[in-house]
Amino acid sequence: MQYQESELFYSDLFDELFPILRSITGPGLRQSYDIFSRYMPLTVQSIPTGTSVFDWTVPQEWHCNDAYLLDPDGQKVADMKRLNLEVVNYSEPVNSEIELEELQNHLYSLPELPNAIPYVTSYYKKRWGFCVSQNTRDKLKPGTYKAVIDSEFVDGHLDIAQTVLEGESKKEILLSSYLCHPSMANNEISGPLVLLGLYHRIKRWPQRRYSYRFALHPETIGSLGLLHLEGDYLKENLVSGLVINCMGGEPEELVFKHSRNDNGLLDKLLYHLNEHGFHHQNIPFSPLSGSDERQYNSPGFQFPVCCVSRCFHAGYSEYHTSLDDKENMGIKPILDSIDKLEKILIALEQTATFENKFPYGEPNLGKRGLYPTLSFFSKERVGQLEELNHIRMLLNYSDGKHDTIDIANLSGCSVVDMESAISKLEQQSVLEML
Amino acid sequence: MQYQESELFYSDLFDELFPILRSITGPGLRQSYDIFSRYMPLTVQSIPTGTSVFDWTVPQEWHCNDAYLLDPDGQKVADMKRLNLEVVNYSEPVNSEIELEELQNHLYSLPELPNAIPYVTSYYKKRWGFCVSQNTRDKLKPGTYKAVIDSEFVDGHLDIAQTVLEGESKKEILLSSYLCHPSMANNEISGPLVLLGLYHRIKRWPQRRYSYRFALHPETIGSLGLLHLEGDYLKENLVSGLVINCMGGEPEELVFKHSRNDNGLLDKLLYHLNEHGFHHQNIPFSPLSGSDERQYNSPGFQFPVCCVSRCFHAGYSEYHTSLDDKENMGIKPILDSIDKLEKILIALEQTATFENKFPYGEPNLGKRGLYPTLSFFSKERVGQLEELNHIRMLLNYSDGKHDTIDIANLSGCSVVDMESAISKLEQQSVLEML
Amino acid sequence: MQYQESELFYSDLFDELFPILRSITGPGLRQSYDIFSRYMPLTVQSIPTGTSVFDWTVPQEWHCNDAYLLDPDGQKVADMKRLNLEVVNYSEPVNSEIELEELQNHLYSLPELPNAIPYVTSYYKKRWGFCVSQNTRDKLKPGTYKAVIDSEFVDGHLDIAQTVLEGESKKEILLSSYLCHPSMANNEISGPLVLLGLYHRIKRWPQRRYSYRFALHPETIGSLGLLHLEGDYLKENLVSGLVINCMGGEPEELVFKHSRNDNGLLDKLLYHLNEHGFHHQNIPFSPLSGSDERQYNSPGFQFPVCCVSRCFHAGYSEYHTSLDDKENMGIKPILDSIDKLEKILIALEQTATFENKFPYGEPNLGKRGLYPTLSFFSKERVGQLEELNHIRMLLNYSDGKHDTIDIANLSGCSVVDMESAISKLEQQSVLEML
Repeated sequence: MQYQESELFYSDLFDELFPILRSITGPGLRQSYDIFSRYMPLTVQSIPTGTSVFDWTVPQEWHCNDAYLLDPDGQKVADMKRLNLEVVNYSEPVNSEIELEELQNHLYSLPELPNAIPYVTSYYKKRWGFCVSQNTRDKLKPGTYKAVIDSEFVDGHLDIAQTVLEGESKKEILLSSYLCHPSMANNEISGPLVLLGLYHRIKRWPQRRYSYRFALHPETIGSLGLLHLEGDYLKENLVSGLVINCMGGEPEELVFKHSRNDNGLLDKLLYHLNEHGFHHQNIPFSPLSGSDERQYNSPGFQFPVCCVSRCFHAGYSEYHTSLDDKENMGIKPILDSIDKLEKILIALEQTATFENKFPYGEPNLGKRGLYPTLSFFSKERVGQLEELNHIRMLLNYSDGKHDTIDIANLSGCSVVDMESAISKLEQQSVLEML
Repeated sequence: MQYQESELFYSDLFDELFPILRSITGPGLRQSYDIFSRYMPLTVQSIPTGTSVFDWTVPQEWHCNDAYLLDPDGQKVADMKRLNLEVVNYSEPVNSEIELEELQNHLYSLPELPNAIPYVTSYYKKRWGFCVSQNTRDKLKPGTYKAVIDSEFVDGHLDIAQTVLEGESKKEILLSSYLCHPSMANNEISGPLVLLGLYHRIKRWPQRRYSYRFALHPETIGSLGLLHLEGDYLKENLVSGLVINCMGGEPEELVFKHSRNDNGLLDKLLYHLNEHGFHHQNIPFSPLSGSDERQYNSPGFQFPVCCVSRCFHAGYSEYHTSLDDKENMGIKPILDSIDKLEKILIALEQTATFENKFPYGEPNLGKRGLYPTLSFFSKERVGQLEELNHIRMLLNYSDGKHDTIDIANLSGCSVVDMESAISKLEQQSVLEML
Repeated sequence: MQYQESELFYSDLFDELFPILRSITGPGLRQSYDIFSRYMPLTVQSIPTGTSVFDWTVPQEWHCNDAYLLDPDGQKVADMKRLNLEVVNYSEPVNSEIELEELQNHLYSLPELPNAIPYVTSYYKKRWGFCVSQNTRDKLKPGTYKAVIDSEFVDGHLDIAQTVLEGESKKEILLSSYLCHPSMANNEISGPLVLLGLYHRIKRWPQRRYSYRFALHPETIGSLGLLHLEGDYLKENLVSGLVINCMGGEPEELVFKHSRNDNGLLDKLLYHLNEHGFHHQNIPFSPLSGSDERQYNSPGFQFPVCCVSRCFHAGYSEYHTSLDDKENMGIKPILDSIDKLEKILIALEQTATFENKFPYGEPNLGKRGLYPTLSFFSKERVGQLEELNHIRMLLNYSDGKHDTIDIANLSGCSVVDMESAISKLEQQSVLEML
């Protein structure tokens, strides 16, 4: 199968990824990276078990071969091989007979969603358990159950996958998504699929002002791992970042959760574009919910990393349950998301701070062919000056303090509208990007 | 008599203080300090006559043994021993017969308040005079009067009384009031009474984050004297200050005149609390009226010192007259003021800037018992997160730039509501006060 | 003829200046300077042809002795001696017969104003041409025309004329206008006339806090030339500047285009005065239209130079045509402009940042005769404190950060109202200008 931006390709890729038992470490995660590696040149870096990652320690890998729960009649009440959410992720091994009453302490279900099987994890404290629907749980009869979890904890690695598309500048845009949830669709597979699509779109651009880093990793510990590996480099070079997740579902508009200090170039652009025909929502940062943007925006980093989704920030009822499936996610919204995000990134390419190399007075534009050599204020001639006006605004305000968004705002237009004027002044070496 | 926070105690103390002939220097002031010293451990510092205090010079002490004015019939028109307002404070000695016409130049009365005897002073220019009601003045008959003022100016001191309740930090809160007016109630004795009450309240707190300085001194020259003695120390250590006066009278609400730059911790807290159920008024600084806060807020110091009163800033008709008496002031408002101010100071104790000692990513709260080790998004569990949300807000924003008021504002609650989260994070050494 | 601020004087001066064939260089410009030199002591500095002036090069001088266009019947279609707009300014020499069809490439007219002859220039590219009314052009018959332009380009100078009225401080206010257009009235002669009037008004002031520089020069290349000569000095000393043009015409109110960063003292004053009884319009900077303020406000200088006119910024239909004549301009508005601008500059003299030399506490005003030595709060006495209140505001806020406009705003009055308090405090050496 070759990469193709088609519903069929994305649907097949989804189907291959969905059933894999992923966790924050281990074989399911690596298998998922391998699949993506067929379509983009990922480099995987591995941080050994026991390594300190800021205030955290890389845990042992969790390898789980089988997990099931038999009722007194020998029927499978839960079975990881049927649906991998049915075992609590990172469960310790168990193989024992247990009375229903005691078993209840190891069962998780949602009274508010009686058909759904919840997704439960216990990465940093040893326990075991099974997840079942409330309906199933209500029908369990008293008696002796058999709980089997054939898992082990082994020294291994935390694996982080990345690739970079280089641009004219080392200044970079970080695009990241996470892989660690087992069989969930919107809140798992949608993000990496969109990341893959963006990789192919951006690779095709004839010119890239910025470099683009694409990262896949488990949530939380994975973004901390990425910061462990690349934090210093990003401190120097990160222009803006975007955590991509929950890109499927019904909502039409993308929702951008801004960065903590709301001061990145992307933050600013997102507001600007909304005043010039783009339609998305902008919501403020909060550390109370969300995903990896919380790590990037922690007080020690304060990186200008936003988070985009369609429905994540408002919450949705299928969140972290078996109801978050392919039908709930949809393939069409994935393709639509790739399209919308590319448009924003193209606008971001026009967004920079330039220096006017001839700042003392107005440069002589006539000798550069940028201004009429004849001064004649007829109605007809005055009407032809739109691009010249963009040029004048760019020259006057390219003082190192105003970026092109500021100048576009002062001009009452979008940065996209100024593209041609920017490019002419750059070609004439009158403007130089800072 | 032992200190007691009761109406009886405060009423008796008032009665003892009221008749003393105070001025900005001299025996009446020292006698008043002695009375307060019975109930709080005041240290008195004395600045000798003739000392330069910034642009001022400490004047000689004024000692006045007697002062009266006899009409042509030998009746006492004014008598300091009847009411000490009747002599112009700091009058030079006189003992002479004088015709009514010339005497008028030495009489002060208020046409707008014909029953009131005004309070008049002439500290820095030698003159003498008597204060009478307009009614009395209108009835004076022509003839020869006898004016006797048995006063003298002697080299002595400007006396400043202070005590400090130490806290965990040397950073301190200044609470000050003035003693210099003779028999006036609201605009004199109410302030020191409230100061005494606050001393006893704050002394009882199990823990004090800040140190608290309590100061009594004459108005203007006294606060300049305090700045002369403690200005450099306060420059280093003052967090906020409060001049306390006119704490009696009818108005229910306290009125806080903010500091000049409106940038002290108390300034900020006063606005914050008003949005979270406290009821007081906040008015801006002005150098045009008020009391000692004008000295603290002068351009050379710009100390964040506010001023609190019930009616001072709006003005009241009894101001600086014999009508400002115990009935006009009341004892109940004194006790109420102590209560209201203590509540605000308790909130101030929660107001500080902390540093998150684990700023790179989110700290691992699970291993500290501050976060559930099981990730399971059921409705029931999500509902129990209020304190955890406070913890997350404190962690993300404790970056040295946001104080707890900022974080409470971002959280939509009061600093008082965050007390428990702050304390847990401090106990775990995750937060450290800056 | 001696200088006189009268309609007659200004009318005669206008008539002498109007017919001169000016350009950005050459004899017409120098002749115009000579006329102004009779009434103000101008110093002319000359920058040689070929000198680099920032991104520009000083061009050769254009000397034009004659220019006319004969139709096939030998009638003069255009004639520089009749109206000097009829030759394209800076035309290269020509002396040839030419068919109408080809001639059209060298003719300029305005379909939208069929009676007007446009003003056209080609300073930096060699071409030749004639300007005619559209009505004339429409009637031209086919045939052979004779085009004669007896011009030459000679090495010479760019001439800049200036004079300075010195004040107590080297800090200066720049007042500039341009001389380069041939026979046009409002957009040429009105500005220098107002500049001359202001020179005489300011010269008569008994005291000048600031120095005032008066500059005349051609537009664009001339202000660049002034910056070439004085840029470094102005960087040190310029407080604010004002480009003066189009001061005639019908509009009552002056329109001030503010400086780019809107942060000069004059910028601030113009807003302040409008809240205190002055009536003018304030509009923001733009590099898209206007005059020499664009050079002063270019990113390398960012000088706080505003531009004043009556109608320039909104545009007017006679602009750059033969319709911009004496009748259109009027002489009365010139005198009115002098008056209005002087009032604003008088207010600017009150606008400065002072330092209180006694910043620690309130200075003892009593000993300086600025405050009553008797403290007696009667209604009558409290009513007499307005100037004392200005004094207190000036003392408290003269901290190097607040200028007198800030203090006047805090006091709810105009800087003009504070004149007396400022002057008393300066006389007492309590305030010192920074």
